[in-house]
Amino acid sequence: MLYQEDFKVGAWRESTEPYLVTEEEIIEVGRRWDPRPFHIDRDAASDSLFGGLVACSAHLFAIVSWLAHHMEQPTAGVAGLGWDKIRMHAPVMAGDRISCKVQCLESRPSGSQPGCGVITVYNELYNQRDELVYTAQCSFLVERRPEP
Amino acid sequence: MLYQEDFKVGAWRESTEPYLVTEEEIIEVGRRWDPRPFHIDRDAASDSLFGGLVACSAHLFAIVSWLAHHMEQPTAGVAGLGWDKIRMHAPVMAGDRISCKVQCLESRPSGSQPGCGVITVYNELYNQRDELVYTAQCSFLVERRPEP
Repeated sequence: MLYQEDFKVGAWRESTEPYLVTEEEIIEVGRRWDPRPFHIDRDAASDSLFGGLVACSAHLFAIVSWLAHHMEQPTAGVAGLGWDKIRMHAPVMAGDRISCKVQCLESRPSGSQPGCGVITVYNELYNQRDELVYTAQCSFLVERRPEP
Repeated sequence: MLYQEDFKVGAWRESTEPYLVTEEEIIEVGRRWDPRPFHIDRDAASDSLFGGLVACSAHLFAIVSWLAHHMEQPTAGVAGLGWDKIRMHAPVMAGDRISCKVQCLESRPSGSQPGCGVITVYNELYNQRDELVYTAQCSFLVERRPEP
């Protein structure tokens, strides 16, 4: 388990397995949260700007979260605090396999939550062709290492 | 349908119905995307910082998307481009009813996508006690009004 003290500024971590995005899931997540034609209707999506079904942004945010649970070591995360500079660089489509790289930008004890620290990371998501699809900065509350 | 020309800088819009967050859904979404104890285990959540189950951030992002489809008039949205200054102000818990207010910050034709415009909005999410739970800025591509 990674605690606040384990996050070293400048260090990179990577996901250990990619997330496979299926057509069925794009449609299912889209119908539930963001039912636009290019998320839920294969024919309408073919005629859209994207030329096919694309994952909705809520789907991509969920995949970011899934990938955070598929790193070599889990993080003792407590709460997401804020996100900045989220940018969508390319559409995520059926058959894409998404992986992530994470660099630590800041690591410090929390001023307000005893036993916790604040971490800020920079996230990059790539597809199976190593094309950048998403970047963001995220700050979150994380446990400090328990006293022995 | 709202096109780029319909977004006036400074104008506010509101959701027409709140999103009810249930315990079952917090656990289901948490298990799928962010399986931390305080999202999926009622007893562990009771002992956590939050004192009960809390919706994961991926869940809240999905609710933001759902609320965007529950405004008086739908938007001819094409793609999310970027998010800035996302801040989580208070946990979202079982039984909460979440609504949103949206202010237009920018509205202009796209320089790169013919027939589209770029909108930037400021989002505020509230619970049923009018407590602010989430704020963010979001930029997205939207269709321009079709020629008659």
